[in-house]
Amino acid sequence: MHIAVIGLGLIGGSLLRALAAAGHEVVGYDADPLTRSAAREAGFSIADSVREAAAGCDVTVLAVPLPVLPQVAADLDGYDGLVTDVTSVKGPVRDLLEGRRFVGGHPMAGRETSGFAASEATLFDGCAWVLCLEPHESALDDWLLLARLFTGMGARVVPVTATEHDAAVAQISHVPHLFAAVLAGQLQENPLAGALAAGSFRDGTRVAATRAELTAAMCGGNWSSVHRELRRLIGDLELMAEALESDDPIRALTPQLKIGEVARRAWPATTGSPKTEMSEIWALLELGRAGGWVTSVRDREVVTMRPENDRNGS
Amino acid sequence: MHIAVIGLGLIGGSLLRALAAAGHEVVGYDADPLTRSAAREAGFSIADSVREAAAGCDVTVLAVPLPVLPQVAADLDGYDGLVTDVTSVKGPVRDLLEGRRFVGGHPMAGRETSGFAASEATLFDGCAWVLCLEPHESALDDWLLLARLFTGMGARVVPVTATEHDAAVAQISHVPHLFAAVLAGQLQENPLAGALAAGSFRDGTRVAATRAELTAAMCGGNWSSVHRELRRLIGDLELMAEALESDDPIRALTPQLKIGEVARRAWPATTGSPKTEMSEIWALLELGRAGGWVTSVRDREVVTMRPENDRNGS
Repeated sequence: MHIAVIGLGLIGGSLLRALAAAGHEVVGYDADPLTRSAAREAGFSIADSVREAAAGCDVTVLAVPLPVLPQVAADLDGYDGLVTDVTSVKGPVRDLLEGRRFVGGHPMAGRETSGFAASEATLFDGCAWVLCLEPHESALDDWLLLARLFTGMGARVVPVTATEHDAAVAQISHVPHLFAAVLAGQLQENPLAGALAAGSFRDGTRVAATRAELTAAMCGGNWSSVHRELRRLIGDLELMAEALESDDPIRALTPQLKIGEVARRAWPATTGSPKTEMSEIWALLELGRAGGWVTSVRDREVVTMRPENDRNGS
Repeated sequence: MHIAVIGLGLIGGSLLRALAAAGHEVVGYDADPLTRSAAREAGFSIADSVREAAAGCDVTVLAVPLPVLPQVAADLDGYDGLVTDVTSVKGPVRDLLEGRRFVGGHPMAGRETSGFAASEATLFDGCAWVLCLEPHESALDDWLLLARLFTGMGARVVPVTATEHDAAVAQISHVPHLFAAVLAGQLQENPLAGALAAGSFRDGTRVAATRAELTAAMCGGNWSSVHRELRRLIGDLELMAEALESDDPIRALTPQLKIGEVARRAWPATTGSPKTEMSEIWALLELGRAGGWVTSVRDREVVTMRPENDRNGS
């Protein structure tokens, strides 16, 4: 397939490498001339504009930050191939690209480093890659084309609506970034705490080292879901603060902590056996809600995996 | 030296192994007969009571959970050796053992596994080991004896008062455990979120897999500091929630996130050169406050390390 990748940071650069490694014809573009030079030196075909990169390609992947998407989308006026993106919020992007041949995507493969220099062909191996479907308005053929492309690179493709995606990533990625930031901020002017900090601090704050501008763009782009989930968790923390004020803090805290212990020990879920199914939008959405994903696509059939304990599973 | 270790879980078992490896005569005891059998099978000398284990030992280390400490301390009535402990709260333990020959300790070497089976001789290699000093009432010789013992196993010994310790560990360990628990709890009845969860969730929730009873005992034992620091961080999260409600969430969030980014990137601090100093209580406490530690002890001299950017450093 001929594929253009617009934006060659960590995700776009890794995608360029992974698609090339999977045997596709790829062309890249990045707004930064130094990044274009680095990608050319790494042996890739690099265009000098968005329009030139996309010309003649079957698929164009927008791997640019959310604030730049409107401009890049405008540069693609008249392009008739399939467009997808990799940004961490799907509702606003769906609205932005309404009327286009577009399927929203989001690979769950971030890390605290960024830029083309950090990119790797294996970044998506085994990672969950959300591809959005909407109950009544989706073009299933385009969805299957991308699902085939990304499962071919080793990703687990998760079918969900944009709205369900935005709530879930607020919970498991965006709010955790905010938690990490306030935990890390405690070290400000506090060298003793830094000297005592060990494993729980190291892991709990790892993503706080992400560039603040990137985290702010990610959370701000999904502000409505992030706000709702953050308020919910502040409520949970308030209950813990109340437990600590009680006559028996240990007894009061234990059941609250038990919920997290049980959930964390059960994650990641054990999977059942793969199952081959005809692809249908409602069935794919049910699969995503149940915590399942697509591992490969053949014509209109998909091979699916589900958590072992899913009551709808095989 | 002859040393008794009371309680042979992860910390006590690892200590038994590490002290034996460092050439000391060690004897262990655990209230659980199965643990005593396992430790005997691993080749260790194991007593059948607290009193029997401690008899004739220069040092007795109490590696039991906080709720059991009062009973074990009572079992040691009449023992005239030096007593230390490894629990994660130091103010209440100082009060409990007042009048004894006692120096409170806390190795920052937890993990989400527990029990003798998980113990390792190398657990303390490079870890920070708090040994408490109080400005006016400390016996410096006892402190130096333990500092020599634990630096001999590769630990970085951090001198701090019990009060300063309790505040710092609330910040960098206890509250992070509460954060991890509420983040992990989001997966309850939410298989889609579990399927999308990746690195930021994995690391941000790792310690949520700790047994809830242990985390509750740790936080409950230090409830006053944990409560204060938790409320402070809830306040920080409230400010983030307000930023998300503003007209420009990205711009409002960035400076808040920047504090965490800067602090996390500066951690762990780069250290300066080692320095040999005469040991004095006020100087050791100043060292701890500056984020420094003791790496070895020779007679009454200590070799110290400090963060490179410490203005009081060498």
